[in-house]
Amino acid sequence: MSSANYVAHMTDLVTFGETMLRLSPPDGERIESSSTLEFRVAGAESNVAIAAHRLGAKAAWASKLPDSPLGRRVVAGLRQFGIDTEIAWTDEGRQGTYYLEHGTEPRGTNVIYDRADAAVTTTEPDDLPLGSIRDADIFYTSGITPALSSTLKSTVGEVLRDAQATGVTTAFDVNYRSKLWSPTEARDCLTDLFPAIDVLVTAERDARDVLGRAGDAEDIAHGLADEWEFETVVVTRGSAGSLALHDGERFEQSAFDTKTVDPIGTGDAFVGAFLACRLDGTDVQTALEYGSATAALKRTIPGDVVVVTREEVERVLNSDVNEISR
Amino acid sequence: MSSANYVAHMTDLVTFGETMLRLSPPDGERIESSSTLEFRVAGAESNVAIAAHRLGAKAAWASKLPDSPLGRRVVAGLRQFGIDTEIAWTDEGRQGTYYLEHGTEPRGTNVIYDRADAAVTTTEPDDLPLGSIRDADIFYTSGITPALSSTLKSTVGEVLRDAQATGVTTAFDVNYRSKLWSPTEARDCLTDLFPAIDVLVTAERDARDVLGRAGDAEDIAHGLADEWEFETVVVTRGSAGSLALHDGERFEQSAFDTKTVDPIGTGDAFVGAFLACRLDGTDVQTALEYGSATAALKRTIPGDVVVVTREEVERVLNSDVNEISR
Amino acid sequence: MSSANYVAHMTDLVTFGETMLRLSPPDGERIESSSTLEFRVAGAESNVAIAAHRLGAKAAWASKLPDSPLGRRVVAGLRQFGIDTEIAWTDEGRQGTYYLEHGTEPRGTNVIYDRADAAVTTTEPDDLPLGSIRDADIFYTSGITPALSSTLKSTVGEVLRDAQATGVTTAFDVNYRSKLWSPTEARDCLTDLFPAIDVLVTAERDARDVLGRAGDAEDIAHGLADEWEFETVVVTRGSAGSLALHDGERFEQSAFDTKTVDPIGTGDAFVGAFLACRLDGTDVQTALEYGSATAALKRTIPGDVVVVTREEVERVLNSDVNEISR
Amino acid sequence: MSSANYVAHMTDLVTFGETMLRLSPPDGERIESSSTLEFRVAGAESNVAIAAHRLGAKAAWASKLPDSPLGRRVVAGLRQFGIDTEIAWTDEGRQGTYYLEHGTEPRGTNVIYDRADAAVTTTEPDDLPLGSIRDADIFYTSGITPALSSTLKSTVGEVLRDAQATGVTTAFDVNYRSKLWSPTEARDCLTDLFPAIDVLVTAERDARDVLGRAGDAEDIAHGLADEWEFETVVVTRGSAGSLALHDGERFEQSAFDTKTVDPIGTGDAFVGAFLACRLDGTDVQTALEYGSATAALKRTIPGDVVVVTREEVERVLNSDVNEISR
Amino acid sequence: MSSANYVAHMTDLVTFGETMLRLSPPDGERIESSSTLEFRVAGAESNVAIAAHRLGAKAAWASKLPDSPLGRRVVAGLRQFGIDTEIAWTDEGRQGTYYLEHGTEPRGTNVIYDRADAAVTTTEPDDLPLGSIRDADIFYTSGITPALSSTLKSTVGEVLRDAQATGVTTAFDVNYRSKLWSPTEARDCLTDLFPAIDVLVTAERDARDVLGRAGDAEDIAHGLADEWEFETVVVTRGSAGSLALHDGERFEQSAFDTKTVDPIGTGDAFVGAFLACRLDGTDVQTALEYGSATAALKRTIPGDVVVVTREEVERVLNSDVNEISR
Amino acid sequence: MSSANYVAHMTDLVTFGETMLRLSPPDGERIESSSTLEFRVAGAESNVAIAAHRLGAKAAWASKLPDSPLGRRVVAGLRQFGIDTEIAWTDEGRQGTYYLEHGTEPRGTNVIYDRADAAVTTTEPDDLPLGSIRDADIFYTSGITPALSSTLKSTVGEVLRDAQATGVTTAFDVNYRSKLWSPTEARDCLTDLFPAIDVLVTAERDARDVLGRAGDAEDIAHGLADEWEFETVVVTRGSAGSLALHDGERFEQSAFDTKTVDPIGTGDAFVGAFLACRLDGTDVQTALEYGSATAALKRTIPGDVVVVTREEVERVLNSDVNEISR
Repeated sequence: MSSANYVAHMTDLVTFGETMLRLSPPDGERIESSSTLEFRVAGAESNVAIAAHRLGAKAAWASKLPDSPLGRRVVAGLRQFGIDTEIAWTDEGRQGTYYLEHGTEPRGTNVIYDRADAAVTTTEPDDLPLGSIRDADIFYTSGITPALSSTLKSTVGEVLRDAQATGVTTAFDVNYRSKLWSPTEARDCLTDLFPAIDVLVTAERDARDVLGRAGDAEDIAHGLADEWEFETVVVTRGSAGSLALHDGERFEQSAFDTKTVDPIGTGDAFVGAFLACRLDGTDVQTALEYGSATAALKRTIPGDVVVVTREEVERVLNSDVNEISR
Repeated sequence: MSSANYVAHMTDLVTFGETMLRLSPPDGERIESSSTLEFRVAGAESNVAIAAHRLGAKAAWASKLPDSPLGRRVVAGLRQFGIDTEIAWTDEGRQGTYYLEHGTEPRGTNVIYDRADAAVTTTEPDDLPLGSIRDADIFYTSGITPALSSTLKSTVGEVLRDAQATGVTTAFDVNYRSKLWSPTEARDCLTDLFPAIDVLVTAERDARDVLGRAGDAEDIAHGLADEWEFETVVVTRGSAGSLALHDGERFEQSAFDTKTVDPIGTGDAFVGAFLACRLDGTDVQTALEYGSATAALKRTIPGDVVVVTREEVERVLNSDVNEISR
Repeated sequence: MSSANYVAHMTDLVTFGETMLRLSPPDGERIESSSTLEFRVAGAESNVAIAAHRLGAKAAWASKLPDSPLGRRVVAGLRQFGIDTEIAWTDEGRQGTYYLEHGTEPRGTNVIYDRADAAVTTTEPDDLPLGSIRDADIFYTSGITPALSSTLKSTVGEVLRDAQATGVTTAFDVNYRSKLWSPTEARDCLTDLFPAIDVLVTAERDARDVLGRAGDAEDIAHGLADEWEFETVVVTRGSAGSLALHDGERFEQSAFDTKTVDPIGTGDAFVGAFLACRLDGTDVQTALEYGSATAALKRTIPGDVVVVTREEVERVLNSDVNEISR
Repeated sequence: MSSANYVAHMTDLVTFGETMLRLSPPDGERIESSSTLEFRVAGAESNVAIAAHRLGAKAAWASKLPDSPLGRRVVAGLRQFGIDTEIAWTDEGRQGTYYLEHGTEPRGTNVIYDRADAAVTTTEPDDLPLGSIRDADIFYTSGITPALSSTLKSTVGEVLRDAQATGVTTAFDVNYRSKLWSPTEARDCLTDLFPAIDVLVTAERDARDVLGRAGDAEDIAHGLADEWEFETVVVTRGSAGSLALHDGERFEQSAFDTKTVDPIGTGDAFVGAFLACRLDGTDVQTALEYGSATAALKRTIPGDVVVVTREEVERVLNSDVNEISR
Repeated sequence: MSSANYVAHMTDLVTFGETMLRLSPPDGERIESSSTLEFRVAGAESNVAIAAHRLGAKAAWASKLPDSPLGRRVVAGLRQFGIDTEIAWTDEGRQGTYYLEHGTEPRGTNVIYDRADAAVTTTEPDDLPLGSIRDADIFYTSGITPALSSTLKSTVGEVLRDAQATGVTTAFDVNYRSKLWSPTEARDCLTDLFPAIDVLVTAERDARDVLGRAGDAEDIAHGLADEWEFETVVVTRGSAGSLALHDGERFEQSAFDTKTVDPIGTGDAFVGAFLACRLDGTDVQTALEYGSATAALKRTIPGDVVVVTREEVERVLNSDVNEISR
Repeated sequence: MSSANYVAHMTDLVTFGETMLRLSPPDGERIESSSTLEFRVAGAESNVAIAAHRLGAKAAWASKLPDSPLGRRVVAGLRQFGIDTEIAWTDEGRQGTYYLEHGTEPRGTNVIYDRADAAVTTTEPDDLPLGSIRDADIFYTSGITPALSSTLKSTVGEVLRDAQATGVTTAFDVNYRSKLWSPTEARDCLTDLFPAIDVLVTAERDARDVLGRAGDAEDIAHGLADEWEFETVVVTRGSAGSLALHDGERFEQSAFDTKTVDPIGTGDAFVGAFLACRLDGTDVQTALEYGSATAALKRTIPGDVVVVTREEVERVLNSDVNEISR
C-alpha cells in the first residue's frame, strides 16, 4: 500500500501551449465519407506534461481556453490522465481543433488544422500562472506555440526569460509545423528565443530544414550547443534513435522496435519521459533510454497521449514483455 | 418501372446559404465527457432543397466551400440525399461547424456554433451560379445567411433582386438565430430585403420578437403582407400548426402528432415540402398539409435532413401508418 | 476572463466511499445477449463530490483502490469531471464493479453488484487523508459505506467523529441498498453513527422502511431531528419533491419535470448541489431549489454523474430553457 | 443450487418456420443513409420457441437452412437463447433476410422483406425431424409458413395432420402478413389447415380482415371454435388485452402498461409464454396472464426475442418492479 | 477559387453494371458471431466510375434498381462520391447484396454473394440511357455483368456494339468471378463480346485460367491484341505491376508498396484512373502510373471505393508522402 | 443436403473448467481511458470444446455458474458456437471475469484477472455430470482448473481418476498461468494428477519452467512419457511448431504463417482440433496438422474462440486460400 500518487501538491513541471480537440474518423475511413469521429484531446505541451506525469513527475499544463463545453472538454480530457490544469477562461476566441485521417502506406496520416483564432492565441503573460511557473523545476513549451500568433511570440519569449531568470530550467522542442509557418519565419523567431532556453530538443530534420544545420546528429548537437550555450541538446532521429549532448558530454540511444497504431505524439512522449527522468535526478543516458522506451510504447496507443505506467516503460527497458501476460 | 428520378437536368429550386458540419455526442451524452461524435451535414438552405427534392422537385444548393476534406464532406453529405450542388471552391476561409448536445426536458437541445470566418462569409454574387438561379422557378435563402457577414448581407440582397427581376419567385424564411445577431440588427437587415421577396415564411415568435408584430398569426400575416406586398406569407406556430395568406386568401393547417427523435430541421422540412408543392402547381392549402406532414416526419429522423419519400408523406396525410408495416 | 476554476488549492468538501466500475449494455439490451458494454465510473460519494464541484465547490473524493488499470480507470473517470482524488493504493482487494441493465416500464432498471472484497472494504482511518478532512468545511459519506464491511463500519464511525470533533460539518445520506444489508442491520449501524452527523439526508421510503419512522415527510424530519439533534434533516420524496428541517425551520421544494434518460445518481446530484449551496452560504430554501434542479438535470444525462454547469442549473431554476437553444 | 436447465434432453415444444436475418439501422436512422446495421436473428416460430423456453419449456426449432455463414448465423443466434435446433442443411436456396426501420409516430416501423427463394421454401416433410415432433407435447407453426411457397403449404398441412394424428397438440397463430399474400389467399389456405389445429391464436384484426369474422373478440372466438372445433381459441387485441375460449369456457386478460423499445415479436412472446404455461399444466387464465406479462416485457427489449427469465415475468405479474432495483 | 467540379453537365464516362449492398462484420469478426455489420455500396462498374471521377472525369453509372429503400441506398452511396446515376427504377427483382468477411493470412477475405434475381438481371437496352452512352467518350462494363443473366449477356453485347458503332470507345475488364460462372462459360460469352471492345483489361490470372492464354504478360497482351484487334490491352499482375499494349506499343509499370486495409476494388481503382487519364489525353505510360498509384491508395481505404483526390494520387507518384503531414 | 449437425445427442468430448466474461477495450485502447468494452466469453476448456466441435466432434462443457445474468451470459456465449453446456447453477460465488488489453509490440497483450471466489471454485464432483463424462470418449481439463482453489484441486483429481477408471481417455493441457500460482505449486499439483492422464499437452516453455524438463522438445516428450506413462505427449512450440510422441512414435508439425489479430486461445484451438481428429480416428500426424492449421486460423479471429468450419481448416492445409475468395 502506498500513498496517493495522482495529486500533485507541488509541481515539478509546468508546460504551456495550445491543446486542441482532435477529430478523427475510425478505422482508416476518409473524412469525406465518415459518419462518426473519434473525439480526443491533443497538444504537444500537454502531451509532454502527461508523459512526464506518467513517469512520476508532478506536472501541470497552463493555457487559455474558451469558457464553453469545448474548452471544458479539453480540461476533462487532460485531467483524466493525471495532470493538473491552470486555465485562463475567456469568452473571446475559438477552441482550436484538428481533423486527423489515419492512412497506411502509401497514404500517410494527414492532419487538417482548424485552429485559427483560438483563444490561446491572445494569451498574455498575465494569463499564465507565473507563480506556479517560477516555483517549478522545469518550464516547457515548444516551437508550435510562438507559431500561432504574434502575441504568443512575445508571450513565449517573456515567460521563458522570466522563468530562466528565477532559476527554473527552461526546456523547448523545436517541433516545426510546415502548415503553420515557413522555415525562415520559424528560424527567425526561434533563434530569438534560444538565449532563454536551457534544454533544446530538435528533430534532426528540423535542425537541417529549419535551423540550417549540417552534418550528422552529433555535429548538429555540438553546433547548436556551441552557438547558443544550451545546457542540454537532444537530437531525435525517429527510428534511428536519439543523441544528447549535456555539459559537453555525448549520449546515444537507439530506438525500440514498435508496431505502430498511432504515430502522433511520439516525440512528446520521448521528451516528457526524458524530462521526468532529469527531474528526479536520473542521468542523461538513462533518461534517453526511458524517453526511447516511452516513445515506442506511445506508438502502440491510440490518441496523442502516452497512457502508460513507469512499470510498463521499465518492462520495455528490461525486455520483459511477453506476447500475452497472464 | 419509371425513368431515373434522381438526376436533375433542369432545376426547379435553387437555394443558397451556409451548410455546416454537425458534430454531436450520441445518446444524450455531454460534449465534455464524450469520446465519439456523430458527424453529419446540416444547413437551413440545403435542408430546404433536400426536403423539396424528396417531394419531387429538382433542387440544387449553391454555396462557397473550402477546398478541403471538410468542404468535400459537405458536398458528399448533401449529394447522397439527391440534390445537386454548385460550389465555388476556395482556399480562403474555414468550414463552419456546429456542436449539438441533445437534451431531454428540462435540459433542452444546445447548439454551439463554431462558424466564424467560414468560407461562405466571403461569397460575392459572382461566386454563385447566377445562370442557374435565373433559370429556376424559385430561389430560396433564409435570414441566417445575411446574419453571417456584411458581405453576405449585400450578396443576399443583390441576388434576391436579380432573381426577382428575371421572374424567379423568391422565397425567404426569417429563421432568427439569437446567437448570430440581435433582434434589432435582424429587423433592420431583413426589412431591407423584404421588397425583393415574394414568399415570406416566419415563425410566429420571430414575427413578434424580431419583426415587432403583434396580434395572432392571422394579424401577423395580414400586417406583413400589407406592409411589404408579399405574394405569400406563411406563419409557422410549432405544435399549434401553420397559417398562410396567399393573394389575400387565408389557409390554416394543424400540426401532426409526432414523437420527437431530433427536432432540428423541422421548419426547413415544412418549407421545402411547401415549396415543392407550389412548384408542381399544388394549391396552398394542400401545400400546407404536405409541409405539416413532412415536418412531423422530420422529427422522427436523426439529423437535420428529412430523408423521406413522397409516398411516406402521403401515408401520414392519409392516416395510413401502422405501428408495424409488414 | 476569469482565473482557473478547476484547480482546488483548498478543499471545501471531502467525500469518502466506494466508487465502482459501471458496466452496462447499450440501448436497453440484456446482459445475456450484449456484445459490448458501456464503461463508466460510479459511486454515491464521488457523485456527490462531483455535483458539488459542478455547482462551484472545491471538492475531493478519498478512498482506497487497487493499484491496477481498474483502479486507475476509477481515478481517471473522476478527475475528468473536475474533482481531486486522494487515494490509498493497495495490492490487496478487488476493484468493485456493477452491471446495469436499463429497462423501460414494466422492466425497470436492474443493478447486479460484483463488489465483494473490494479494496475499499479494508480501509482504516489511516488510509484516509485525515488532514484534508479536518481542513474541509464538510465531510460526507453515505449509508452504503458502512454496509460494505465491518472494517468500514468502524472506520466510518471513527472518521465522522474525528471530523465533527475538529469542527467539520458532517453530512450523511442514508442511501439504503437492499442488496447489501437488511433494514435491521442498517438501522442498528446507522443509529450508532447518527450522533456524529450534522446533516442527515434520507429518502422518505428509507426513513419508513429502515429507520422505522411514520407520518409524512415533515413528521419524519421532526422525529429524526428531535431524537438525534441533527442540525439539518433533508427528506427526499422523488417526484414529490423534498423537505428540509434546519434549526427547527421547515423548507419545502417541489421536483422539476424531467424526461428520464438515466435515473441513477439523482439523489447524489441533489445532495451535492445542496451541500455546494450550503458551503457558499446560500440559504436552505435556495439550496433545496438548486438541489432539485440539479437532480432533474441528472436524469437527462447518461451515467451516474451530473455533468452540468451552475449556469445550466440556474436556467432550469429560471425556466429559461428552450427546446433548441441556437 | 439446481441442476442444469439449458440442456433439453426431451422436448416439450417443437416449432417450425422460417427464421431470417434481421438488418436494422440503429437509433431510428433510415436505411438510405445508414452506414451500419444491427444484425440479429428473427422469426415468428423461433421467437415462440424461445419465449416458451424462457418460461421453462424444453423447446426446439426445426427448419431448413443454407449451409453457409448466413445459415450458421441463424443457428448461433437461436442457440444462444437456450433452445435446440434441428436443421436440414442444404446448398440450394437463399437465407431469408429482412430490413427493419424503426420509426416513432407518425412514421411507424417498416419491414422490407428480402426472403424470396429462401432455402426453407423447399422444405418437405422428410426434411423435418418428424420423430422429435411426434415425441413432443406441442407442435407449433404460424400462418407465415404456408404463405412462403406452395411446397410449404403442403408440408405444413402434412406435418400438422401427422402430429395431431400421433397425439401431439397442434398450435397455430394466424399471423397474417399483407406483404406475403392477400386476405383471400390466406383464408383459403388457413381454413384448409384448421381441421388439423387444436389451439388457434389470432389477432382480432386478422380474424376480421382475413378470416371474415364479425362481432367482438368473444363472438370471434365462439364463431371459430364452433366452426372448426378448436380445443382452444385465443384472440389477441394489442393494448386491449386478450381473450381465450377453452373447452367452451371464456377467459380474459388485460394488457400490461409498457414503454415500447421494440414492438416486433410481442405476439410471439405472448404465444410462447402461453404455451409454456399450458405445457406445465397451468390453467388457461394464468397462462393468459403469463402471456400478457411476457408480451409487455418483450416490448422493452431490442430485437424480436424476449430475453427474460420466468422470475422477471412473475415480478411483472406481482407488480414488484421498482424504477431501480439495487 | 475555382468553379464547381462535382457537377457533371456532360459525361465523359458512362459505366453499366450491378452495384450491390455490401454487408461486412467489423474488425475481422466472423458473420456467424457478429452483431453489427458495416453497410456500404459496392460494384465493379460504379467503382470504376468513381475512380475516374476522383481523377477528374465527368462520370455516371447506369443501372436498374428496385424502387425501395435498398435501391435508394445504392444511389445515395454512389452520389456521395460525386458521380451521377441514371437509374431505371422497377418494382420487379431484388437488390443484390454481398456479405464480406475480412480475414488476415491464412484466412483470406471471403465474399458470400446474395445477388440472385437482382433487378439488374432483367435490364434490357431500353432500360439504359442510350443517349447518354452515345454522347460519352468511353462506355465501360465488365465481365461480371454478362455473368449475371442471359438477358444481361444479350444486353451487354447490344449496348457495346451500339456504343462502338456511334464512335464511343468501349472499355471492358474481364473480372472473372468463379462464384458466378465457370471458365468455359465465361470464355464463350466474353469472346463473343470482344469484337465490340476497344480497350480490354484483364488480370494475368484470368487471361490464363479463363481466356486460355499462355506465356508472360507481354505474350498475353500481344496474343489478345492480335486475335481480337483491341486498340488497347492492359494486363494487371497484382503486386507484380501492370503492362499495356496500345497500338502495338508496350508500356510497363510496377506496383507501389502498400499496407492493405481493404483489398476489394483495387483493380477497379486502377481501371478508373487509367480511363480518366486516357479521357483527358494523358499518354498510356502516365495513365498506367496513375492507375498504379490509385490502386495502391485504394488498398489503404475501407470499402470498395477509392475516396481520393487527384492531388493525393500525385503525391504518391512524386513520393511526396510523409508518415504524418502537418 | 445433410441432417442437422448442431444437436449432439451423444457426446464425444466433455470438458470442465472455468469460463469467464472477457472485457476488453476496442482498438488497442487502454482500460484506463476506454469508455466501451467488448464483452465476450472465454475459458480454456470451453475453447477446447468449441474447437473440437467445429472440427466435427460432439462436445459439451460442464461447469458451475452463478444463477445470474452474468452466468447466463456465459451459457449464451458458448451455446452460440454449437456446443452443449451442463451447468450446476448456484447462488453462491461470483462470475469470474478478465480484462484484456491488446497491445502491439513492444507493449504486449495484458490480462488482468478478476476471478477470485468464482462459483466454479467450489465445484465438487457431484456438481458435474459424471454420467455424461463416463459416457464420453474423451474428458478434458487443463492446469488452470486445479490452480483456482483447493476444492478444485481435489475435484479435478477425483474426476480424472473416475473417468480414466471407466475407460474414458483423459486429456490435459498444462496451461501454466503465472498470475495464478508459482511454478513449484503447479508442479506439485500437476504431478499428482499425471497418473490419471492419458494425453498430456504442454507448451515447451511450461515443460521447462514448471515441470523442470531440459533438452529439446523431443527430449521433453520422451522424458514425460517415460516418467508418467502417458499414451500421448504433445509439446507445443508456438511459431516453431509442435511435436507429439504417441505410443513411442514421434510426429512433428511446423506452424502455419499467420497475421495475428488476437493471439488468445491459440493453444486451445490446437488442442481442440487435435482431439477432434483423434476422436474420429485420424492418425496423430494428421491430427497435428489439423491442430496447427486451426491454431493459425484462431489468430485471425477476434476473441478466444476459433469460429471456423472444418472446410476452412482444410483449405489452409491444402494451401487453397486466396487473398479474396469471390
